[in-house]
Amino acid sequence: MTGDALAVYLRAQATEFLRALRLHRETGGAAAGGAQETVDAARALRRSARRISGSLHTFRPLLDADWSEDIRPELAWLSGTLGLEHAYAARLERLLLALHRLSGAAVFPEQSVVAAGTAAQRGGSVAALAGGARAAAAAGARGPGRAQASLAEAPQDTTGPARPAPAPDRGNLTVGAAKAGALLERQLTLARTRAHSTALQALGSSRFHAVADKVALLASEVPLTPAAASTGLRPLAAAAEERLTDSVAALPLLTAGHPYNAQALVHGLSPDPAPHPQDGPWHQVRLLLRLHRYAREVLSGGGTPAEPGLPAAGLALNRHRDASEAAGAAAQAARTPRITPATAYALGVLHADQRHEVEAARFAFQQAWQKQAVGAS
Amino acid sequence: MTGDALAVYLRAQATEFLRALRLHRETGGAAAGGAQETVDAARALRRSARRISGSLHTFRPLLDADWSEDIRPELAWLSGTLGLEHAYAARLERLLLALHRLSGAAVFPEQSVVAAGTAAQRGGSVAALAGGARAAAAAGARGPGRAQASLAEAPQDTTGPARPAPAPDRGNLTVGAAKAGALLERQLTLARTRAHSTALQALGSSRFHAVADKVALLASEVPLTPAAASTGLRPLAAAAEERLTDSVAALPLLTAGHPYNAQALVHGLSPDPAPHPQDGPWHQVRLLLRLHRYAREVLSGGGTPAEPGLPAAGLALNRHRDASEAAGAAAQAARTPRITPATAYALGVLHADQRHEVEAARFAFQQAWQKQAVGAS
Repeated sequence: MTGDALAVYLRAQATEFLRALRLHRETGGAAAGGAQETVDAARALRRSARRISGSLHTFRPLLDADWSEDIRPELAWLSGTLGLEHAYAARLERLLLALHRLSGAAVFPEQSVVAAGTAAQRGGSVAALAGGARAAAAAGARGPGRAQASLAEAPQDTTGPARPAPAPDRGNLTVGAAKAGALLERQLTLARTRAHSTALQALGSSRFHAVADKVALLASEVPLTPAAASTGLRPLAAAAEERLTDSVAALPLLTAGHPYNAQALVHGLSPDPAPHPQDGPWHQVRLLLRLHRYAREVLSGGGTPAEPGLPAAGLALNRHRDASEAAGAAAQAARTPRITPATAYALGVLHADQRHEVEAARFAFQQAWQKQAVGAS
Repeated sequence: MTGDALAVYLRAQATEFLRALRLHRETGGAAAGGAQETVDAARALRRSARRISGSLHTFRPLLDADWSEDIRPELAWLSGTLGLEHAYAARLERLLLALHRLSGAAVFPEQSVVAAGTAAQRGGSVAALAGGARAAAAAGARGPGRAQASLAEAPQDTTGPARPAPAPDRGNLTVGAAKAGALLERQLTLARTRAHSTALQALGSSRFHAVADKVALLASEVPLTPAAASTGLRPLAAAAEERLTDSVAALPLLTAGHPYNAQALVHGLSPDPAPHPQDGPWHQVRLLLRLHRYAREVLSGGGTPAEPGLPAAGLALNRHRDASEAAGAAAQAARTPRITPATAYALGVLHADQRHEVEAARFAFQQAWQKQAVGAS
């Protein structure tokens, strides 16, 4: 397996990229905001950008160095810029769901939360939750007109089976939790809106057009080095895997495998507003796991190779990242001037809850990795 | 094994009670406050009071009903009254240690926290911690004079090897955590002082003297029913065990055995200031486990019967109770009027941390109980 296989993979990913870009433009582009097709198209754009960038990194020696050095940071910029809006929306949803869970309010029929597969449903949940938080914040002001208003905010075009409007538990949030929810909604919606504008600008920029042109060239012609045709891919893929296993070996897996080790909350009250330093190595492993996965895709001709535990390990690390960032957002919100003690208290509980999720995700990763190691040996 | 064995056990416990009472008076009684011997004596008093009361309950049919109905509530009153002071002290220590852990501050050399076996050392820790919290609360005011003052608060008569004064990490608490610590210290120290006065009054009361007289009689003469000499103890002990296993069967053990099930934090933000209703069944099991243990002691002639997992299960339930009450104290403190948002935030994190401990204790109980069940079958 040599450079030819890499060229096939890169051409396929470049084609995917162009298809997603076309779809994105046809469905209204970034201006359309939340339409499902546009969201899917943006995700597909990010997906292929990450794969191209990752493969250029892992199989660097086979590719023209100048070209490769040139396009990689641009692809990273693009997928980073396009991913932010989604990240803020997902973070808000995670935090509002957690606030409801912590208040003991049964927000929805179970399945619509758990099985909500499409982003449209997820978007609907956020709107409904935010409405609920707002309704509860206006303590007592729960007349029929108000209820009507927050129902109207929830999109009715969900793809699942028709379900009753999620009204019953609306008022169940405590005042503190409701205010915390409203504060987070304000802050994260603002961040999301800014991210949306930034993405819009990016997609209209000459910088983006230059990337798109380069990817269009890649779809027909992969700039391999002269030696690529006779260079094996496996040693490079193995090196990527080795970087992954080395990083995993450096993680505190023994601790993580011990349930309720209470490590993730250490420094939970530390005055340092920077991201949790203990999370860094886990985020790093998440990236290396992704590179490993892409390398395996190249070797298997684009298919997903069966490796027990690996998808679960990846999901656990995504959850780790999400919970870590959500905890940071809660701590950040608690630093907002002039909030009430009740709001701050709720944000403290929420922060600790998400750090608990961080710890749970590490445990899940440890378990999945163990399974993967057993499967591989 | 009949009423005779029960009489032997009860006489022995009554003798223990009287010995502890004498020791308590000789070492200065309740007026002495924190002296180690007095603390030990009070614990021994509670210990035998609980055992007498528990055995009267389990083996009720063998004992004179009037006498038994008369003395049991008095013993419960006594051990409850004597236990409160210790409970508040332990709760404060637990919460201050948690605050330090959450701030990422290494309070002491590891061993002095973990291995602090004696209550004097524990008392010392609390004083030092509280001093640390206070020192940090006076943000910046960490001149040598101040440090001297808080060192002076820590008793120097610890029985362990001499260790350096735990100064280095003093200032490491965030302002919020330090203020939360100072608030908890104020509230729980006040509660402890009141409990101390109540215990003092109780031990000087005619009500107490009546209990002590009855226990003195018990030490020489156990009022068995005429049929007791020919009534077996085992069916009654088995009934106590059955009540325990029934209660355990009603617990959500399947959930508890699943690490990070996030159940203990549900309702963590609920506006209801009452104790967590979900904790009730676990507290109940703790009491039934104790009755079962005492019944086994009666059957084994006072010795502790080997039953794998049972001590661990008991410890887990104690931890469950302690964490549950500590979480309640943090939530209660957050309702103090005019606290700052930073204080409230820290108390929210602390509350969630202790609810996390509740969940961890349930997990530990589930594991220990499983071991016990395997050992018993």
